[in-house]
Amino acid sequence: MSRFWSPAIQSLVPYTPGEQPKVDGLIKLNTNENPYPPAPGVEAVLRNFSSERLRLYPDPDCQALKHALAEDAGLATNQVFVGNGSDEVLALTFMALLRQPKPLLLPETSYSFYNVYIDLFGINAQHIPLTADFRIELCDYCGENGGIIFANPNAPTSVSVDLDSIRALLERNTDSVVVVDEAYVDFGAESATQLINQFPNLLVIQTFSKSRSLAGMRVGFAFGHPDLIEALERVKNSFNSYPLDMLAQLTAIAAVEDKEYFKACVSRVIETRNWTTEQLQRLGFDVLPSHTNFVFASHAEVAAADLMQYLRDNKILVRHFTKPGIDNHLRITIGTPEEMKALIDCLQLHPEL
Amino acid sequence: MSRFWSPAIQSLVPYTPGEQPKVDGLIKLNTNENPYPPAPGVEAVLRNFSSERLRLYPDPDCQALKHALAEDAGLATNQVFVGNGSDEVLALTFMALLRQPKPLLLPETSYSFYNVYIDLFGINAQHIPLTADFRIELCDYCGENGGIIFANPNAPTSVSVDLDSIRALLERNTDSVVVVDEAYVDFGAESATQLINQFPNLLVIQTFSKSRSLAGMRVGFAFGHPDLIEALERVKNSFNSYPLDMLAQLTAIAAVEDKEYFKACVSRVIETRNWTTEQLQRLGFDVLPSHTNFVFASHAEVAAADLMQYLRDNKILVRHFTKPGIDNHLRITIGTPEEMKALIDCLQLHPEL
Repeated sequence: MSRFWSPAIQSLVPYTPGEQPKVDGLIKLNTNENPYPPAPGVEAVLRNFSSERLRLYPDPDCQALKHALAEDAGLATNQVFVGNGSDEVLALTFMALLRQPKPLLLPETSYSFYNVYIDLFGINAQHIPLTADFRIELCDYCGENGGIIFANPNAPTSVSVDLDSIRALLERNTDSVVVVDEAYVDFGAESATQLINQFPNLLVIQTFSKSRSLAGMRVGFAFGHPDLIEALERVKNSFNSYPLDMLAQLTAIAAVEDKEYFKACVSRVIETRNWTTEQLQRLGFDVLPSHTNFVFASHAEVAAADLMQYLRDNKILVRHFTKPGIDNHLRITIGTPEEMKALIDCLQLHPEL
Repeated sequence: MSRFWSPAIQSLVPYTPGEQPKVDGLIKLNTNENPYPPAPGVEAVLRNFSSERLRLYPDPDCQALKHALAEDAGLATNQVFVGNGSDEVLALTFMALLRQPKPLLLPETSYSFYNVYIDLFGINAQHIPLTADFRIELCDYCGENGGIIFANPNAPTSVSVDLDSIRALLERNTDSVVVVDEAYVDFGAESATQLINQFPNLLVIQTFSKSRSLAGMRVGFAFGHPDLIEALERVKNSFNSYPLDMLAQLTAIAAVEDKEYFKACVSRVIETRNWTTEQLQRLGFDVLPSHTNFVFASHAEVAAADLMQYLRDNKILVRHFTKPGIDNHLRITIGTPEEMKALIDCLQLHPEL
């Protein structure tokens, strides 16, 4: 703390991202990265790009990338927003749409960055508990509100809600924006993108960091009514006009355009997730039904914190949250079949499992 | 406007970046891009980078890049902040340090994005006029304030203030942060970086977009006391943890490390600026003394708006601002000698010059 800081930031508690270890040789199942490389077209972009172009500014409006995303989703370009990772898209969404006099409704347990934005922008929020089995019950999101945000599938629980529940929510909640954060949706949940043309208050946020294997390039995007997109554009152009560099734009386009690779990559992750779930259950873990590229698991006899440390001692990183209610769970990213076999083999050697 | 927008953004007037034309064959002297490619090491980064790495998140703290910048400036790593272009660094600076009860002092004519941030964050500001000859007179920045920000050299005027004036300002203004935005400093002005260790309230902001020819990669940075840097880190980590992708970090490091190329590139631009200034003066232009990679020029007999249109009709883009007081000037980026010769040849054919 310093007397030079803006008063509003003195009590901020920033988001803590998962550890990015500086040492090699670890099996990294802690930040939900995709175990497979991005589409081959991404490599081709890098091979063919001349660094001379970098002296020029990129397209601040990312028109070509928006066009590729709109095509892929069956939407118009003015229904698409892109940003520097879905975190930036979320930050701008909180600024542009969710700073309202009435309270924002969101799950008590969800992506922890939401609460950081709530603090940063001084938003009035009301947290709704998950059910006992860690589900989001959208019927509980009712009454006067200035907006609703939830992750589908939810993080770190991995559980999804179905499209009918989202449609029902949108049918009864017409006076505020509903944001569905679909960072993990491609791994088996139903996207609300198909509802965009029916509900002018729906914003769907997705990312290239998970199913598209482009975490290293920082590209996120949102779909919504042109009025919602315009709000995001206005705030973006009042904060940072050029958040996506030339290579982020080009590699993202290459990733969107290769639909076959995308489908194959997602299928492999789902197959490995199913195998991993069975193996964990065999070892006595309770594993929530996942539609993501991670599983959220707990064991009745061994504390999650101890298991995390045991795995870490064996060079396997998984994520553990200390938040009450989920502090006896591990969030385990789905890696390659070999990595997951190493995880299961390691757990099998644990004296209490 | 839409009923779903946050109330605070409904009256925002976003920043308008210079035009990025979609057609080829134009001489682009409108966005202050460097006419020369980035250092050869940048090309080497692209040639050697495997796209497989992109499935992983980048280092959120950009430690290697901070280290390279600290080395170059003779500072410690905790005196360095990096962001997604200097616009993002500025946005975070306004949030973290300049939202104060007392008014922010800034030049009436300067980088127009400052006023967008003032609106976005609801900052109380007091604008100080330039002198009649378009200089920033730092003696005028006095009295109670919650911070001071100015560009040195100033934009779009190209004129710089000397280091003694900045030191004198810092000696008398010890209770608020002084931000010196040095986007163009490498083209001949004196950087306040050398004062960082003496003044805990000094923040210097620079960019890779101009002198380092990396506008396409979006990298900016700030130097300051560790307490000021910590404020920026806290807000950055409450907004977007990973704003710099892997290639932005690596190409920026390559650009910092090649000091010889940097010096040679800057010298060439300065030489071309001097030639261009002489030629414009020969044609009757009044050209302000520039320490940037652009010149700010007016002509007593032909209106700037008309000249801009005439040049545009001849496929040469320059920037014209409609703001009263500077609406009879053109901001002309220094391109290659060939591009500047084409500009002068074109102006020479103007019937009234």
